[in-house]
Amino acid sequence: MKKTALLYVVLIAAFLAYVVQHVYTNSESERSFRSEELRGELGENYVMVTFLSGIEYWKSCLKGFEDAAEALNVSIEYRGATQYDAREQITVLEQIIAKKPAGIAISALDPTSLTGVIDKAVDAGIPVVLFDSGAPGSKAYSFLGTDNYAAGEAAADRMADLLGGKGKVAVVTLPSQQNHDERTQGFREAVAQSYPGMRVVAVEDDKGDAMVAKDLTEKLLDKYPDLAGVFVTEAAGGKGAGEAAGELEREEKLRVIAFDTDKDTLDMIREGSISATIAQGTWNMGYWSLQYLFHLHHDLTIPSPAASGDVSPLPVGVDTGISVVTPENVDDYYAK
Amino acid sequence: MKKTALLYVVLIAAFLAYVVQHVYTNSESERSFRSEELRGELGENYVMVTFLSGIEYWKSCLKGFEDAAEALNVSIEYRGATQYDAREQITVLEQIIAKKPAGIAISALDPTSLTGVIDKAVDAGIPVVLFDSGAPGSKAYSFLGTDNYAAGEAAADRMADLLGGKGKVAVVTLPSQQNHDERTQGFREAVAQSYPGMRVVAVEDDKGDAMVAKDLTEKLLDKYPDLAGVFVTEAAGGKGAGEAAGELEREEKLRVIAFDTDKDTLDMIREGSISATIAQGTWNMGYWSLQYLFHLHHDLTIPSPAASGDVSPLPVGVDTGISVVTPENVDDYYAK
Repeated sequence: MKKTALLYVVLIAAFLAYVVQHVYTNSESERSFRSEELRGELGENYVMVTFLSGIEYWKSCLKGFEDAAEALNVSIEYRGATQYDAREQITVLEQIIAKKPAGIAISALDPTSLTGVIDKAVDAGIPVVLFDSGAPGSKAYSFLGTDNYAAGEAAADRMADLLGGKGKVAVVTLPSQQNHDERTQGFREAVAQSYPGMRVVAVEDDKGDAMVAKDLTEKLLDKYPDLAGVFVTEAAGGKGAGEAAGELEREEKLRVIAFDTDKDTLDMIREGSISATIAQGTWNMGYWSLQYLFHLHHDLTIPSPAASGDVSPLPVGVDTGISVVTPENVDDYYAK
Repeated sequence: MKKTALLYVVLIAAFLAYVVQHVYTNSESERSFRSEELRGELGENYVMVTFLSGIEYWKSCLKGFEDAAEALNVSIEYRGATQYDAREQITVLEQIIAKKPAGIAISALDPTSLTGVIDKAVDAGIPVVLFDSGAPGSKAYSFLGTDNYAAGEAAADRMADLLGGKGKVAVVTLPSQQNHDERTQGFREAVAQSYPGMRVVAVEDDKGDAMVAKDLTEKLLDKYPDLAGVFVTEAAGGKGAGEAAGELEREEKLRVIAFDTDKDTLDMIREGSISATIAQGTWNMGYWSLQYLFHLHHDLTIPSPAASGDVSPLPVGVDTGISVVTPENVDDYYAK
């Protein structure tokens, strides 16, 4: 009976020790959950908003946003205006603000139309960052996107490599949009400054249409039979120029450098009708947008988002970088 | 006796249940530790390296680095050349590379001297990012720092506010350093473009010395008795110009705008001898440097750091932003 009583006491003691340890472990992990780890809370929802929501370009931005959400244990939602229509994007944003999400990442259709609705979100305490296309006059905390001038320079360097530094080249672009103008300018100035054997003979407007781009390229070839290369600053036109190059019966290939990494463009790099394309850091735009929103929502920055004055709690501008896609590395760029 | 046996069984069952639950909980948290959360591993060590390691300026960069280390559960180390000596900084870096840390964040003493040793680290598989002062020709993955031209513009805007948009102003700077030249240029061009009532009458070299800056300011006041403001682009000189302004016996105050947030500068803003100073996003430089290194070390980026070509796994440039410190918000800037 004494032995049983002793066992009894030992078991009760062990039991109590486990209970105490368990409770202690739980409160410890809860504390570190709140103060140390980068882990979201239940129902913490972030929204990505674009225009032209159907286009392939946003997929990689969204993948970055999703990957960050998984790493940070939060949920996300993707919304977009289906058309190229500022009023539609404003309406979508109004609906999102009404639901008070933990943060919004926006690609602005143009630099000015969304300023009012962005400021409304920030004034309501909802963190906003901009990616891909900015709205410089708004209260958004940060802009993450491509340095388009540098992208144009990189295209010029690649073109010079392909042409051995000499020949006539043309640009096919969308002159009405700032990002495309910057790409054209970077290309032109790099050619003028670094490649005396090359000359930009024309800058044409393809209105973002592959058929127009094909037609324009053929007309350029009529006018300049020795045209050596075309830099197309937007995704749709690259395919058109690539088709024209593929159909060209001439000893010297027409070199086409395109923009972005749509599947069609990558396929044409494999086939050889497009020589290279400029890939943007789209995954990084989405990934770091969510990281920034998370840090704002959880007040993890110094200075705090709530600090007085025109203080910046986050980096204000992020150049997400570009890379040049060639036949050698094209396989790395197909969506995984 | 039956009752005792029953209690016995219940206790043993409860005990076993706790053991099982405890083991299960542990293996669960270990799984998520590895695959989902942004949590480092035992012995994962990152190093921050600067020059002039004793100066106050780095403290907030290091605080950001430390805060990110706590959030990501990794350890860090701070190393620096004590002098303004490139060879010393290279030697320190060689020692660090030999220890194979998980990543290195470097503020480069000048844009070119460290390129070889930075590339050596990257080639050895050690991620490197640069903060505050870059080395553009190196293989470092990213640069995080101030847009100094924009900082100069912000100083001009603040000066115009203080002076009601009119009066003679001077710049005291370090003309030999690129970041200081950019601040001066941003200030001059903003005044020329936006404030026709203001005029930059002099740009002087204080050699980074408070006494020289005080002396220069007094001489400028002799030459231009109606001098209304001085913008000092570096931390030491701001105090000198502030002292000259404090001792000036004149009805109209001489307005001094300084740079950085040393304790002395903040004290003089409280006292009124300095009107404002430009705060850099130093915490953000350190915080996001460590985040970037962590993401490179754990191969969390798309594209991967190991991808072919000149692919950029991270944003290549980060503008960490600035803010203007005034008597109204100066209390927020004392180190916490």
